[in-house]
Amino acid sequence: MPSSLPSSFTAVVQGSGRGIGLALVEALLTLPAVERVVATARDPGSGALPALSAEHGGRLQCLALDVTEPESIERAAERLRASGIRPHLVLNVAGLLHDGTAVRPEKRLEDLNAAALERVFAVNTLGPALMLRHFLPLMAGDGKAVFAALSARVGSIEDNRLGGWYAYRASKAALNQILRTASIEARRRFRNIVIAALHPGTTDTGLSAPFQSNVPPERLFTPAFVADRLLAVIDDLEAEDSGGFFAWDGQAIPF
Amino acid sequence: MPSSLPSSFTAVVQGSGRGIGLALVEALLTLPAVERVVATARDPGSGALPALSAEHGGRLQCLALDVTEPESIERAAERLRASGIRPHLVLNVAGLLHDGTAVRPEKRLEDLNAAALERVFAVNTLGPALMLRHFLPLMAGDGKAVFAALSARVGSIEDNRLGGWYAYRASKAALNQILRTASIEARRRFRNIVIAALHPGTTDTGLSAPFQSNVPPERLFTPAFVADRLLAVIDDLEAEDSGGFFAWDGQAIPF
Repeated sequence: MPSSLPSSFTAVVQGSGRGIGLALVEALLTLPAVERVVATARDPGSGALPALSAEHGGRLQCLALDVTEPESIERAAERLRASGIRPHLVLNVAGLLHDGTAVRPEKRLEDLNAAALERVFAVNTLGPALMLRHFLPLMAGDGKAVFAALSARVGSIEDNRLGGWYAYRASKAALNQILRTASIEARRRFRNIVIAALHPGTTDTGLSAPFQSNVPPERLFTPAFVADRLLAVIDDLEAEDSGGFFAWDGQAIPF
Repeated sequence: MPSSLPSSFTAVVQGSGRGIGLALVEALLTLPAVERVVATARDPGSGALPALSAEHGGRLQCLALDVTEPESIERAAERLRASGIRPHLVLNVAGLLHDGTAVRPEKRLEDLNAAALERVFAVNTLGPALMLRHFLPLMAGDGKAVFAALSARVGSIEDNRLGGWYAYRASKAALNQILRTASIEARRRFRNIVIAALHPGTTDTGLSAPFQSNVPPERLFTPAFVADRLLAVIDDLEAEDSGGFFAWDGQAIPF
């Protein structure tokens, strides 16, 4: 398997309405090797995507995909298949830490709540599992292809030192296990596909906004910086990296 | 903190209707140090518990608890609190790998199914998280106390070599993260409580029944053997073991 992505390829960015997902779309559109970006979002008609789409014409296609709606994942994959589009890069970006109402990262056991746990797992674990189910078959064939999902260092069980954030931590640990399990299946069935869990670092987005006060400025990254770093890590991934967990600087993170 | 459980204590076994849970209840009832066993099950009026309860009188108390019903967990904990019962051992045993109908361990990505994923996470991850929330405060105080949950070696992300069983593997990885996160909180708030994830080995129960054909006879344990081994591991747990993942023979398992 070649160590780089093909010289001309289609990328799918799921969860591209804002934050790191939007920055990934913008970064991909600057790369000459990227023939087409398919940007999915819950509501691709709002936010920054329509203007970006107008600017880039057919090179940017926007699709509705809600990661908590299994049918919507299947429908988006079916749209690509019907159009004959074979992506060499699929990025699962959508993630939930808080929603401003019912879902808040738990400081202590008393904050645990069944409905919030369900919601966090739906976005961070079950959705990506169904993304793998429906998108990996589209990516099979020649040339290195990468399915990567944004995980988080706080999802590392071994590296857990501070506690708290039960639902988010556990949903990302479960995501890492889903990705690793899929990488084992891909070694047998989809040999060109590398699968990875990525830690973006603390990025200045809505997700981290309530928790930035203790982050030193040099460790609070812009979405554009993170997008560039993650794409560099992805481009460097080798077959033997599949199933691994990597930070924005390429460092492996223990599970 | 003393390294052994107290010389007279109450144990709670959640998921005690059959299999390893029932064997744990039976093993605990043979121990002189066990003053009382509270056995919880979805339907404690059926199966082996009523006869066992008649045999052991007040030393065995049966309570209804469905780990997928948050209110039922809260209600059971409230019953203990109202009775002034302070358990020094709480064992979360209920686990779901297959249910004979909609839930089956996935052989390949195509077998992934949103409803089955939700159900497996509800039993294996969300329920134990709510057990921790409601039962740890009951266990706080003097004397070593242990909250242990049955996890599974296949939940280890690092040790995942075979793939498949997506929902089960991921739900147990998430359980391990929930337990580890709670152990960090317990170090601050409930200093007498040790929290552990346990791997019972392949045990001759309904859970493993469809998958026993490739297990050598000497590696297929009886529930009674596993119950004895797990209680020995639990008795040996030290404060610094809290948050760890241990097999039936006491060996640490990587996450």
